[in-house]
Amino acid sequence: MSDVKTLDKPVPPGGVIGIIGGGQLGRMLAMAAARLGLKAAIYNDELHAPAFQVTPLQIAAPYDDRNLLTGFAEICDAITFEFENLPSDAIAHLASLKPVRPGQRALEITQDRFSEKNFVRGLGLKTAPFADVSSAEDAKAAFAAIGGLAILKTRRLGYDGKGQAKVTSADETEAAFGRFKSQPSILEGFVDFAFEASVVAARGADGSFAAYDPPENIHENHILRRSIVPGRLSKAQGEEAKAMAKTIADALDYVGVLAVELFVGRDGALTVNEIAPRVHNSGHWTIEACACSQFEQHIRAVAGWPLGDPTRHADAVMENIIGAEAHAWESLARAGALHLYGKREARLGRKMGHMTQLKPLTK
Amino acid sequence: MSDVKTLDKPVPPGGVIGIIGGGQLGRMLAMAAARLGLKAAIYNDELHAPAFQVTPLQIAAPYDDRNLLTGFAEICDAITFEFENLPSDAIAHLASLKPVRPGQRALEITQDRFSEKNFVRGLGLKTAPFADVSSAEDAKAAFAAIGGLAILKTRRLGYDGKGQAKVTSADETEAAFGRFKSQPSILEGFVDFAFEASVVAARGADGSFAAYDPPENIHENHILRRSIVPGRLSKAQGEEAKAMAKTIADALDYVGVLAVELFVGRDGALTVNEIAPRVHNSGHWTIEACACSQFEQHIRAVAGWPLGDPTRHADAVMENIIGAEAHAWESLARAGALHLYGKREARLGRKMGHMTQLKPLTK
Repeated sequence: MSDVKTLDKPVPPGGVIGIIGGGQLGRMLAMAAARLGLKAAIYNDELHAPAFQVTPLQIAAPYDDRNLLTGFAEICDAITFEFENLPSDAIAHLASLKPVRPGQRALEITQDRFSEKNFVRGLGLKTAPFADVSSAEDAKAAFAAIGGLAILKTRRLGYDGKGQAKVTSADETEAAFGRFKSQPSILEGFVDFAFEASVVAARGADGSFAAYDPPENIHENHILRRSIVPGRLSKAQGEEAKAMAKTIADALDYVGVLAVELFVGRDGALTVNEIAPRVHNSGHWTIEACACSQFEQHIRAVAGWPLGDPTRHADAVMENIIGAEAHAWESLARAGALHLYGKREARLGRKMGHMTQLKPLTK
Repeated sequence: MSDVKTLDKPVPPGGVIGIIGGGQLGRMLAMAAARLGLKAAIYNDELHAPAFQVTPLQIAAPYDDRNLLTGFAEICDAITFEFENLPSDAIAHLASLKPVRPGQRALEITQDRFSEKNFVRGLGLKTAPFADVSSAEDAKAAFAAIGGLAILKTRRLGYDGKGQAKVTSADETEAAFGRFKSQPSILEGFVDFAFEASVVAARGADGSFAAYDPPENIHENHILRRSIVPGRLSKAQGEEAKAMAKTIADALDYVGVLAVELFVGRDGALTVNEIAPRVHNSGHWTIEACACSQFEQHIRAVAGWPLGDPTRHADAVMENIIGAEAHAWESLARAGALHLYGKREARLGRKMGHMTQLKPLTK
């Protein structure tokens, strides 16, 4: 890691922020960069990407194409990601050419559920019980240790419920591990929570920290359905969640926005479910309800700018628009602040957009 | 006007909104289109345009290039403008190919200060005293009729104080007319106002109407310095201003956002200063303080979508960042919601960006 580029001074207006990944997060990051007078360049592995619609600076190529990654880095002043699952040698290559934020360490830890959970525990924060599953024998032993209802998850590359299986016996655990083609996995004990929440926060290059109010999150079919702020978290729980995010961000020497997904127990305890080293679906409401959105906040951090004000000036409910729901765009446009992502096909389970409704600030 | 295209149904997500003019207004319109899942195409007569940075669909060509205007219209589903001074035969040509909003009538009336003032008076609304100045004799006669302190303005193509001269005598009026190279002009009597204000409002294709709360505007050197909402307008004056905008929009059969600049007299009377048939600098605060900004509102109207909610959920002060002020971008980024327009040179008097500060809603 000796030849990793760092940013000596902020990227000035007119500079170029490179974004790896051209989905809706990349698209909203690019638009946030433009607000600040920064240019966005998008690198994406498919020809049709939502983010390609919002900047002329774009490369469509595989994520392991060294030459094009090099060319992309050439035109960028700093580089970031909309997703955490880029091959680690691609990240290392980019980092040898231009400042990459968040850094390799944050990506490496959060790409692997096992290392992430160990890291979180090491900080004294609560996680679900978990065990490494690297073999059929591990699978049985892990279920014996954790028992009850548990979830087998691949250590890498899962999202929106993909690469996950609920299991209720040692045999089911072994069978699920087989269906995952024996990929390294972890078995997680089920957390009996009252509801889910998340905290979206930013850490600047100077170590400054800014957290948004944590929303309550409702999932359906493993996909975020809606985020509500303020939700059922008490003020004390909200402060605790922000402090947890700060502990994690500081320990990772993090630069940028990260999200910490939480379970809120019936006893009020907060358990870390997952860390996302990027802007997060549960922070989309910040576009309307805060002067500085999570997207602008991330760009500010990546560009070495001062962090913006995360103060919430309205209550908000953010609802995802999934699959065929997008066909109702005309009535959705009457109901609130509508965001559509420019995706061509409204496939099942695909996030096509979201809608935020604001209400007067209550707390 | 028989072969003018109209929009039979809304432009669906994925459709292309053409924007003539690639300055900051075109840029912010393009970004608003992207929020809604619409693509923006920009036509601009210079190679480096702020709006070219936020969409890959762009044509740089003179505004009278028939072939490129035709090609541009080909890729668009509806067309609009960031400025009102496009040659009228270019507008007519575009309108023969694709729906153009606002329509030719609105542009024709507001391109010419004399026809605009006659139109406003015809609606029973108050304007400054004015007289047509088409010759040196007219100049003297106009001053004799209006007297006192007056302003000679070219009928066409003025903005930010360009093509304007204060005059205090018939001789000065004649001399100013000479300096304007005898371009058709009008002489306007000076209105002794308490302060300036504006109302930014939208009319949908279905005749629906939505007005934002009118800000108080402070000008310096003929350039908008800041807009404050709520400013010194009373609630009744605010309602009156909105009603005036509705009268004007209905009479023009207008589709899109328009701004009406107002003088607020010491007696409380509202005088129409100018109509801008487009989004307006004094409406930039709507990006942060309203769920649907003026830019999104205009795109909604142009695309035939339902209008959005113009409700203001915070108080706001919008300050322009002019010329060399932009060099202080790093400290400005600490002070509020910063918008920079991607302009390369911070020339004197040039609008480089703006900053909006939100405060809790007071009224």
